[in-house]
Amino acid sequence: MTEPVAARPCAADVLARTRDLLDPALRRAVGTLPPSMRRVAGYHFGWWDARGRPIGGASGTGGGGKALRPAFTLLAAEGAGGETTAALPAAVAVELVHNFSLIHDDVMDGDRVRRHRPTAWAVFGRAQAILAGDSLLALAFAVLATGTDSGPDGRTDNRPDGVPVLAGRVQSLLDGQSADLDFEERAEVGLGECVRMAEGKTAALFGCACALGASYGGATPSQSVLLEAFGERVGLAFQIVDDLLGIWGDPAATGKPVHSDLRNRKKSLPVVAALASGTPPAGAALAALYRRPLAEPELARAARLVEEAGGRAWSLARVDGLLDEALESLRAAGLTPEATAGLEALARLAADRDR
Amino acid sequence: MTEPVAARPCAADVLARTRDLLDPALRRAVGTLPPSMRRVAGYHFGWWDARGRPIGGASGTGGGGKALRPAFTLLAAEGAGGETTAALPAAVAVELVHNFSLIHDDVMDGDRVRRHRPTAWAVFGRAQAILAGDSLLALAFAVLATGTDSGPDGRTDNRPDGVPVLAGRVQSLLDGQSADLDFEERAEVGLGECVRMAEGKTAALFGCACALGASYGGATPSQSVLLEAFGERVGLAFQIVDDLLGIWGDPAATGKPVHSDLRNRKKSLPVVAALASGTPPAGAALAALYRRPLAEPELARAARLVEEAGGRAWSLARVDGLLDEALESLRAAGLTPEATAGLEALARLAADRDR
Repeated sequence: MTEPVAARPCAADVLARTRDLLDPALRRAVGTLPPSMRRVAGYHFGWWDARGRPIGGASGTGGGGKALRPAFTLLAAEGAGGETTAALPAAVAVELVHNFSLIHDDVMDGDRVRRHRPTAWAVFGRAQAILAGDSLLALAFAVLATGTDSGPDGRTDNRPDGVPVLAGRVQSLLDGQSADLDFEERAEVGLGECVRMAEGKTAALFGCACALGASYGGATPSQSVLLEAFGERVGLAFQIVDDLLGIWGDPAATGKPVHSDLRNRKKSLPVVAALASGTPPAGAALAALYRRPLAEPELARAARLVEEAGGRAWSLARVDGLLDEALESLRAAGLTPEATAGLEALARLAADRDR
Repeated sequence: MTEPVAARPCAADVLARTRDLLDPALRRAVGTLPPSMRRVAGYHFGWWDARGRPIGGASGTGGGGKALRPAFTLLAAEGAGGETTAALPAAVAVELVHNFSLIHDDVMDGDRVRRHRPTAWAVFGRAQAILAGDSLLALAFAVLATGTDSGPDGRTDNRPDGVPVLAGRVQSLLDGQSADLDFEERAEVGLGECVRMAEGKTAALFGCACALGASYGGATPSQSVLLEAFGERVGLAFQIVDDLLGIWGDPAATGKPVHSDLRNRKKSLPVVAALASGTPPAGAALAALYRRPLAEPELARAARLVEEAGGRAWSLARVDGLLDEALESLRAAGLTPEATAGLEALARLAADRDR
């Protein structure tokens, strides 16, 4: 006799549904921008090409990424018993902040390809991309303060004020990105500070996505706290998976060159875990290799050394541990069963454990 | 017999008083940032050097500029009958937005000197300067939403919500900067679109500074509208004066190299007015000169041609006209006589007509 398996919703279905809710609101918000800013923003989101001609695309798999963070926001609101639409401004704001950070990141890193297309700065120049990123950041706060667009004054209801919460997580994100850039210049980076960097760079916004959704959905303060903890752990797991893809990811799937993080000598978590592992031959060889820019044939060797020094195993184990902790917080929050199941599916997707 | 002259307050005294109100609140707000962001921000404000060592400076003449915009905010609040401190968060937010835009501007223009010191990016690198600018922008919204710092949730009183207003003016500012950069690449720029660019780049934030101050001070909607119009005209006059200084300014006073805007072939207002003047010999010679990068000896000739083609005269007349219009709106707003006199003094200072 086999144990009956509880039906778990498919993450792709959850994302398709939340994306359908998000997209019109996101387009409406971006539609309020001056044409100069809208032009670059819509290109970045994959809505039109460099000359403004619309790009078709199947719903949910468009050029604008998976829109994972706002899906967490919308499900958290539903799970707290609120209307999904109550959290729509928060979901839009979180997605705008994420995309602001991508546009500026690409300028800072000099990355020319994202989502299989030239990055915004590669098309419009660095200055216009910096301005467009600034524009999305300001728009996020306007959307959160007014509802779905950056219109005239005045709040229309007594929703919680998410502006200071979002602003605080944006500071964490910037602090994490600053540390990430600093680490590239430094010879030694500890595993603890590398984890803290990833918590700022990625986990804070995932936590914020969940906490804002919960509070816009009418959650109790302790539910919001538990959902923020859930989101932060999912976000850190997501960053570790992203770091693994930055070394071993298939360019056809990631949209980035193979070994991209090794080319930039990023101190990503698998690399720092390997360097900090104390595994003498591989760890020392990796440290020696990482001291200067890597030539093309050395990239595969560096990847092998990260694996031999235990960087990959550490990462995979940490992802599993984080996912367990996240799901424990999620269950403790006591949301509706449907939302809990949907959030679990999203968490497994983010942690690359949805198979 | 001479006509008795009404005592007009000295703009420097007005600025010294508002700066004393602003500075502690501004430092408190920046003090809430992560150390990585605070380090660059405080350097930019002239509070410490590149290694974090405090810099002394007489109050009101410190390295952080004149803090002109927040002075308008605080006086507008007083003039509307409110407490000066009621508008302090708005004043801090306006000054943060201004400084965010300066930091990103210097990155985009590649300018290495501001306020007689190396710019933030020249000291900390472009990426850290981009992040620090982002940080000040997010902080501005947090301050406006919560009071004087970016602390935890919740508004403490029922002040008007300035977040959407400020966000809208930030979009105008970005749109203006985008046009400014575009103009550098274009052969032909009309005077009308050049004025609209300056209205976005500079006038919008001056207008916002006045309107937010008024509404935080309890002004009626029509008073806020009149004060926004006042601020926008003052701001446009300020930009024209700044453009004149970009050509004829004394480097010892401006903190920038002589002829700096001509070196970059900026399509500033005096230049575009000269090109559009239809004054055949000088205008045509200037157009020919502006077609390619200018060599050192050509800069003085370009400045002379701008003058001969009437660019300087147009600018000076426009400043006078804008100041008259601004003062008309100011008087119509019916603020307290003290605040009206103070705002007039600030307007004359901004328009370089305070002698």
